[in-house]
Amino acid sequence: MSTLLFDKTPWEVVKKGLKRKIIYTGNLMNVLIEFSDGPWDHPEPYHSHPHEQTSYIAEGEILFFYDDEKEQHLRKGDMFAVPSGIKHTIQLLTREARLVDSFTPLREEFLKK
Amino acid sequence: MSTLLFDKTPWEVVKKGLKRKIIYTGNLMNVLIEFSDGPWDHPEPYHSHPHEQTSYIAEGEILFFYDDEKEQHLRKGDMFAVPSGIKHTIQLLTREARLVDSFTPLREEFLKK
Repeated sequence: MSTLLFDKTPWEVVKKGLKRKIIYTGNLMNVLIEFSDGPWDHPEPYHSHPHEQTSYIAEGEILFFYDDEKEQHLRKGDMFAVPSGIKHTIQLLTREARLVDSFTPLREEFLKK
Repeated sequence: MSTLLFDKTPWEVVKKGLKRKIIYTGNLMNVLIEFSDGPWDHPEPYHSHPHEQTSYIAEGEILFFYDDEKEQHLRKGDMFAVPSGIKHTIQLLTREARLVDSFTPLREEFLKK
């Protein structure tokens, strides 16, 4: 599949307030994520993964927490990058937000069995 | 550098009508690209690269040409994916467009010497 057409591709509902659409090649995955349960009082717990990650803020605003650095306020057009194994998380500042997360290698656990 | 703040990061002007901002980790690169010289009468020539690519259409509309498939009209929210070595190109349909291109491994030639 070389394209993912937004209007023709159903959302995968991950949980209440979180849905996604995914496209990928052998070692590279793009995950279009929409949150709709913001704003949040607190960040999600820190997490980390061996996969490298880059993200683009397509809509909305978040706080981005990276390793032991001070959190940063990110808005539409901003990006962040997370090397393998570095703890990170976000906190939604707006009711809704759209992020485009890219990963290498693939987040195999995101693919339907 | 864990974040790229859009408002605080100058564009790199690649050529007239094409500018970009880049963030990356060891094997993963996000390239925020803005085109401002559309619409184009013709697509760019096909190109290919060993790097895998995924792209998100953040603004504007394009035609996406992939291998020998029929071109597809992509709009904001759509995505495309290109495995290593597959020829592809785009044609701008709007005056301006913003794409978020992700690559693995890094497009080393995009990094300043």
